[in-house]
Amino acid sequence: MDKPAAPTPPEALAPSYPPDSVGLVTTRLLTLGPERPLRLESGATLSPVTIAYETYGELNAARDNAVLVCHALSGSAHAAGFHGTGAHEKPGWWELMIGPGKAIDTTRWFVISSNFLGSCYGTTGPTSTDPATGRPWGIRFPVFSIRDMVEVQRLLLDELGIERLLAVVGGSMGGMQALQWGISHPARVAGVIPVATAAGMSAQGIAFNEVARRAIIGDPLWHAGGYDEGDPPVHGLSLARMIGHITYLSEEAMHRKFGRRRLAEGTGAFFGREFEVEDYLRAQGDKFVRRFDANTYLYLTRAMDSFDLVADHGSLQNAFAGCTASFLVVSFRSDWLFPPALSQAIVQALKRSGHDVAYANLESDQGHDAFLLPGNRLGDLLSGFLARLHERSRS
Amino acid sequence: MDKPAAPTPPEALAPSYPPDSVGLVTTRLLTLGPERPLRLESGATLSPVTIAYETYGELNAARDNAVLVCHALSGSAHAAGFHGTGAHEKPGWWELMIGPGKAIDTTRWFVISSNFLGSCYGTTGPTSTDPATGRPWGIRFPVFSIRDMVEVQRLLLDELGIERLLAVVGGSMGGMQALQWGISHPARVAGVIPVATAAGMSAQGIAFNEVARRAIIGDPLWHAGGYDEGDPPVHGLSLARMIGHITYLSEEAMHRKFGRRRLAEGTGAFFGREFEVEDYLRAQGDKFVRRFDANTYLYLTRAMDSFDLVADHGSLQNAFAGCTASFLVVSFRSDWLFPPALSQAIVQALKRSGHDVAYANLESDQGHDAFLLPGNRLGDLLSGFLARLHERSRS
Repeated sequence: MDKPAAPTPPEALAPSYPPDSVGLVTTRLLTLGPERPLRLESGATLSPVTIAYETYGELNAARDNAVLVCHALSGSAHAAGFHGTGAHEKPGWWELMIGPGKAIDTTRWFVISSNFLGSCYGTTGPTSTDPATGRPWGIRFPVFSIRDMVEVQRLLLDELGIERLLAVVGGSMGGMQALQWGISHPARVAGVIPVATAAGMSAQGIAFNEVARRAIIGDPLWHAGGYDEGDPPVHGLSLARMIGHITYLSEEAMHRKFGRRRLAEGTGAFFGREFEVEDYLRAQGDKFVRRFDANTYLYLTRAMDSFDLVADHGSLQNAFAGCTASFLVVSFRSDWLFPPALSQAIVQALKRSGHDVAYANLESDQGHDAFLLPGNRLGDLLSGFLARLHERSRS
Repeated sequence: MDKPAAPTPPEALAPSYPPDSVGLVTTRLLTLGPERPLRLESGATLSPVTIAYETYGELNAARDNAVLVCHALSGSAHAAGFHGTGAHEKPGWWELMIGPGKAIDTTRWFVISSNFLGSCYGTTGPTSTDPATGRPWGIRFPVFSIRDMVEVQRLLLDELGIERLLAVVGGSMGGMQALQWGISHPARVAGVIPVATAAGMSAQGIAFNEVARRAIIGDPLWHAGGYDEGDPPVHGLSLARMIGHITYLSEEAMHRKFGRRRLAEGTGAFFGREFEVEDYLRAQGDKFVRRFDANTYLYLTRAMDSFDLVADHGSLQNAFAGCTASFLVVSFRSDWLFPPALSQAIVQALKRSGHDVAYANLESDQGHDAFLLPGNRLGDLLSGFLARLHERSRS
């Protein structure tokens, strides 16, 4: 016979968040109706366009304290706080950086985080419904670029009544958006903070993305892009994520985390898991396929590969010619997916054009993912830069 | 009306090889019959065992000029010379290094190159016929190790009547064999030359190999390892090769070769090829599936991952304790699959144990593949080391 259930303790009912968290948040949706179609860089038109976003903190009366945060490849609008309580809590992807008293201090700044165009987390993308067919767009979704993502963010800011951003900050693909903001809308942003990014992927980066795309496209379940929602190409997508994860870590970090340690219980099978690092990678792949869409992965890696400020403008110096923002460029010593040299090329071009730019190549052995992890000076740099920007804008 | 065919010019009939090539060669096969079963490290017994090998140059009367060359993951016994004439010529994988007057000078040295155990180029492996079933072994082939490969090479030397090698040389997985030779058979080798290798793969190296294995195993055509010879898991194997190729090159070399150059004629399709580097990678994948076996790839990467002199002996210093050979250890500055630090660990352990060791970290921007390519000092080092070894052995 079962014991009677113990009464639920009251603390389990009242959500309790860390004091430096923005706490419970929800993702909001803004839909631009057919009267405001989005014209893409490719020439295609998209309508309606829904934008998923979150905000933290308060816009001040001067409307001069807004900070736009741009997420990376597999991120979402949920950058800070929690989506639930207890076991269902889900912290934002930059909870480390955003909150009361944190680097991006929500008692001072009004933080806007939007899911970019083409993602699968609320903003219109390949998993959205094509109004012409009533079915998901899939690979009939129009091609889009980093510039298009920035355009959607601008529409959101218009809607929120924000004429000028104090700063735009993003890491990796989010850093590409930050750079594009400085170029596309110089009058609307005082500070640009590209972190662990590049004005164009390296050949090696494109190569890794291409293997990931081949893994998805070659999966028989991809069905020429028309896979069943309930039976997606999980094998290909999981391989893509495994490849990605290797490139997000450094060799040093992998060595420190896993070394050559073997699994405590052998799997018996020769081609089963043998080393801890294998277990980790497979778990990453398995988790990812439950939360991400395969076609979306194709579009997003293509948008990332195609971002190329040199090709767009003839040279990096030309690209930044019309910029008026101050820049804080940050790279990480052990990042081999976006090596420091690519950040340094941005810094040199900015300096040559006489722009105000600060640069730091931060010490970290954590590779590309360092911008998402504690243990480096990124937070200090962000908070200092934002404070100085704000002072200057008021003087 | 067709023109009459021009007579074949005589120079097209007479094969003409470069003067510094060993010219036309053939791969020979040695089979150890049921009276000489091979006992593997795993405890399994394999019989019969066929060994594919080539030799270049002549064994001298003193029988002290033999050099064993060990190939890497996808190599074969065909290290030098050509397998045919005209359009069908196929140079050996180390034609650059082996030949009359070359670094491994076939006018001085008797070079033996054998295909290692478990390969798909003649030596017994997963594609060989299982005598118990009359069908290919496939994944019923026993597990084997680098140590087992060395054992098969030793049996070949016994058969060729070579008691002691002047040197054993190999790059990458071939370098693992070279190291194991120095440890397993100290009395039988005067010089050990591990190039671009390690006493154990890094966690990152294991991770890449694991993604490659998952790519093959997750291909529906793999059929739990029992695929049809005529319909193998080409998608998975091609992904494995693409991943491998990225790791064999350096970021610098990729940048120099391809940069962000786009293909002259766009493919039109959004997920078609767009950048030159994509074209290159796919071509590498496509070529590989026509010449390599998927199960073999699984076995070989596992043998490579499992090689671990520290785990076998408690420490690297212990591993080398019984060695008597002189060592020449070579790494390449831009090799990130087998980073110089892994070679330096070998060198330090050898020095601490009082061994004779020379080390060079060669300048090259060509990554791991540098040992197969011109433009670095490896050849000079090899020829000098071999000459000194031989002088010393006679003094």
